[in-house]
Amino acid sequence: MGKYCIGIDVGGTTVKLGIFEQTGTLLRKWEIPTRTEHNGCNILTDVAISIRRTLEEMGIHFNEVGGAGMGVPGPVARNGFVPRCVNLGWGACYPARDLSLMLDGLPVLCANDANIAALGEMWQGGGKGYDDIVMITLGTGVGGGVVVDQKIIAGRHGLAGEIGHTHARDDETEYCNCGSRGCLEQVASATGIVREAKRFLDSSGDESVLRDIEESRLTAKDVIDAAKAGDGLAMEVVECVGYYLGRALAQLALTIDPEIFVIGGGVSRAGQFLIDIIQKYYEEYETLSEDRPLIGLARLGNDAGIYGAARMVLD
Amino acid sequence: MGKYCIGIDVGGTTVKLGIFEQTGTLLRKWEIPTRTEHNGCNILTDVAISIRRTLEEMGIHFNEVGGAGMGVPGPVARNGFVPRCVNLGWGACYPARDLSLMLDGLPVLCANDANIAALGEMWQGGGKGYDDIVMITLGTGVGGGVVVDQKIIAGRHGLAGEIGHTHARDDETEYCNCGSRGCLEQVASATGIVREAKRFLDSSGDESVLRDIEESRLTAKDVIDAAKAGDGLAMEVVECVGYYLGRALAQLALTIDPEIFVIGGGVSRAGQFLIDIIQKYYEEYETLSEDRPLIGLARLGNDAGIYGAARMVLD
Repeated sequence: MGKYCIGIDVGGTTVKLGIFEQTGTLLRKWEIPTRTEHNGCNILTDVAISIRRTLEEMGIHFNEVGGAGMGVPGPVARNGFVPRCVNLGWGACYPARDLSLMLDGLPVLCANDANIAALGEMWQGGGKGYDDIVMITLGTGVGGGVVVDQKIIAGRHGLAGEIGHTHARDDETEYCNCGSRGCLEQVASATGIVREAKRFLDSSGDESVLRDIEESRLTAKDVIDAAKAGDGLAMEVVECVGYYLGRALAQLALTIDPEIFVIGGGVSRAGQFLIDIIQKYYEEYETLSEDRPLIGLARLGNDAGIYGAARMVLD
Repeated sequence: MGKYCIGIDVGGTTVKLGIFEQTGTLLRKWEIPTRTEHNGCNILTDVAISIRRTLEEMGIHFNEVGGAGMGVPGPVARNGFVPRCVNLGWGACYPARDLSLMLDGLPVLCANDANIAALGEMWQGGGKGYDDIVMITLGTGVGGGVVVDQKIIAGRHGLAGEIGHTHARDDETEYCNCGSRGCLEQVASATGIVREAKRFLDSSGDESVLRDIEESRLTAKDVIDAAKAGDGLAMEVVECVGYYLGRALAQLALTIDPEIFVIGGGVSRAGQFLIDIIQKYYEEYETLSEDRPLIGLARLGNDAGIYGAARMVLD
């Protein structure tokens, strides 16, 4: 086992890369564009060339590197098989095997990007010091990752941690992208918060600073900032979001019972203000024990993926 | 490691015991009464004496036994600490440590009874051949157990697998024993099915064979049997139960994603008839992938606990 490890987080627009010491110190991070054209056939080659060049610049030899972990935006089977990765243009492939061949046989592991973000937060982020965490990422969608005993629970059909598509709301009338109706993502993602705010604005006659913002430009941040500033209507929206999130966390506590929930993604920049609202409803729906999983904030932001990817190769 | 292992399932009325070969063959099983008086101070002694006597009868020496596993009806911490076990009269204790001392230092492990039932079904029951299962027990209440990579997910606060208390129903008006409202257990347990049937009988004017049964004697089996025989009102009840169960399984698929769900407990004697109804709603709420966890029936009945307890000591 070498002294260093490499984390790779392949997104639809950029690939994030990091060289870490195995102790968890990030030595260098950088990004390259994700070339999704031609079925994404250049992505792994670009990654391999960029890693080779960077290691050379840093004076690190392959035999000093324990391995590389790679997160991809799609399901990954236990043997590394990726059936498809729509955002990258990939069809069926074995990206870890292929990247390993391009890196002199360096051990490479591949996992789903939401799952490795959870592992990263466990290693050096909001879940540091804990072995069992569930991470919820509130971004454009709602993602999740489950880590038990420092290991990702990847599931058997690529569905583990797909918390955004668990059912939250009986009275939802619109359909989710997944084809179901009433998913947590429909109310608790950034997109969901904006939609919820528009519904409140349409159905209520109350004054609100949100009425001063052009509807097409309204963001989740606007809603949360207005709520923090005491806007009554915005507060109702955030309470609604916190209600469904708190209830979802209670369900997870009563299923997996981690040490801590780590809330990340753009929406989590609302900070302790949002956590407190979630906590209230969480306690209302988890009444079996007052000794229950904590709720905390993610700390690594967009770097969670490279941290978790690098952490993968340490086992 | 010896040739045999012992499974102990401590219930509020009887303690079930079994001597197994480590290959999974049950050689002998028996029961003794659970003496819950005096804070249950006799329970472990009774178990130890009964095991010693049985091993002697069978001509098995302690050095041929790898260990004993014990399930108890309450939360068990990772170090074996049991904060309380109301049904047994126990306060804070370390039952595995104490039983080990009474059995010549034989290794003894302790876990929650619903969790070991899941492990038992994985070993020799409805989940045989699978490493990742979630078991749902539909009895007086609704219990659950989560097994990943052949290991129980016990959780950090004794809450893992408490699926019966996840939220299922927004419009529930009565409170659950746990203090919450709308728990899965309130609709999907044997008790819940009877209550649901009474509600349908009260609010509907439809004919039903259930009206010929005295209300205080109505059982979940009556409701299911009537539904199987084509009774329209009973069928509505079973559809309602299957709806909430199917949705709950979808949530678990999107969180833990096991290979198979194993449905046990008295209500599961409804068999494939019930599974088919659950499956319909399960597919409606898990739309991310058509490749999803299977749903099957438990096979070990009341023996699941001793099987799982014995299996615990094989790791």
